[in-house]
Amino acid sequence: MTRQKRTVFYLSDRTGITAETLGHSLLAQFDGIEWEKINVPFLGDSVKAQVVAEQINRAAERDGHRPLVFSTLLKPDILGVIRQANCRVYDFFETFVSSIEEELHQPFARIAGRSHGLQHRLSYFKRMAAINYVLAHDDGVNPGNFTEADIILMGVSRTGKTPTCLYLALQYGIAAANYPLTQEDMSVIRLPKALEPVRNELFGLTLGATQLHFIRQERRPDSQYASLAQCQREIQWQESLFQLFRIPYLDTTYISIEEISAIILDRSGLKRQLYG
Amino acid sequence: MTRQKRTVFYLSDRTGITAETLGHSLLAQFDGIEWEKINVPFLGDSVKAQVVAEQINRAAERDGHRPLVFSTLLKPDILGVIRQANCRVYDFFETFVSSIEEELHQPFARIAGRSHGLQHRLSYFKRMAAINYVLAHDDGVNPGNFTEADIILMGVSRTGKTPTCLYLALQYGIAAANYPLTQEDMSVIRLPKALEPVRNELFGLTLGATQLHFIRQERRPDSQYASLAQCQREIQWQESLFQLFRIPYLDTTYISIEEISAIILDRSGLKRQLYG
Repeated sequence: MTRQKRTVFYLSDRTGITAETLGHSLLAQFDGIEWEKINVPFLGDSVKAQVVAEQINRAAERDGHRPLVFSTLLKPDILGVIRQANCRVYDFFETFVSSIEEELHQPFARIAGRSHGLQHRLSYFKRMAAINYVLAHDDGVNPGNFTEADIILMGVSRTGKTPTCLYLALQYGIAAANYPLTQEDMSVIRLPKALEPVRNELFGLTLGATQLHFIRQERRPDSQYASLAQCQREIQWQESLFQLFRIPYLDTTYISIEEISAIILDRSGLKRQLYG
Repeated sequence: MTRQKRTVFYLSDRTGITAETLGHSLLAQFDGIEWEKINVPFLGDSVKAQVVAEQINRAAERDGHRPLVFSTLLKPDILGVIRQANCRVYDFFETFVSSIEEELHQPFARIAGRSHGLQHRLSYFKRMAAINYVLAHDDGVNPGNFTEADIILMGVSRTGKTPTCLYLALQYGIAAANYPLTQEDMSVIRLPKALEPVRNELFGLTLGATQLHFIRQERRPDSQYASLAQCQREIQWQESLFQLFRIPYLDTTYISIEEISAIILDRSGLKRQLYG
């Protein structure tokens, strides 16, 4: 069975992040379609809109199906140009606006750049402080400052500690440190000394040994470090450690960094420092 | 005039990222309301839903207005419990699903965790490679490898190079290096030697001197480095450099990291490596 090919356009006055996030969530629930995704951010004038409309018509002809268009465009005249093209428009704002206006007894301001603009700018310092903290405390560096961390992720090499710390900082303004468990730690089941004072802030990351083997193979093919037996030993050891010291931990084998971060936040009860 | 206080709930089977993105984009367009934002991710059973329903009722009583609820819940029975509470529900999936089903001639799969799950997992290696590249080439480190970069951000200290590089890597899988322009470079208007071989990959970040002064004050209060005069000199010098060497550049004074990244992508014509 050949997969159906279709095109989706994400149109926005600004970054297109909202249109993409929403469209992607919907389309992820439909199977067997190969999507050509076209993001058009900063779509600010009707001349550019005319070019996009023609692009939509060409895609419709090529695919044999009209494209889907997800829009967060705020200017009705620009969306008007797009609606002339052969496509199905899903307009995220118009769909909800009148009902929310009614609920809040207020008009929709229709000013571009609000959702990823000023509010993020105001939280610039919190975000920067969190990023700087992560960079200064990656991979077990400066454990003397771990008491300042909101959370400390721990796990053996390649369990996703660094990207998760970076995501927690960028998305939520959380100061996350991370501590790599090493061969040296593995001689006994004991909490590394550096982690004793921050026992309540620890959170473990684990994953299936086969997946870890696969990831390490990319880094150092056919090494002792990457061998399945070594991965099994390390995972088994670290999970025993987490259990013995009652450190909350998460198996990340099937989940993304976004999900890992949201779960850590949920389970640890940490308060996010940035919102929206 | 006192600001109206209201509560918004973001309910989701998984991370809540989609529900929050939708709600935040919409609510950012209404002024003068102070929002209490409550994110409830991983809302998987009706017992937990009952607890949330009670929380909604208490908020309604406290605020004197019923809360708004943005939902991406996939299970109708859980949403059913919420609908019993005193609130106005905006259900993202139900709003669009039947029309998209009709358009695609396919049923909505209704499987949780798809939008931030598997697809991101599949791009794990691209994302990790980009993050590792950024960490290994932050702040002008290893300029010998700059030819491997997708893009090289340049600017004086505190112009947002590092967080932008990290965001480009996490969100788009782009390998971004950054090069700090220093006092040493400033003796003449000349491209630093390390950047000559990668001239076509350069992108400048600048901002208003007053804003730079403000940011540097946080870091080293009342230093020569943070003085307004010094900031003015550095900004003026770097903008002359960008213009002379026709390096595209962006004034980031009023925009967020999300917007800076989207604009860089748009202007440089770089192809993103991750999608959705």
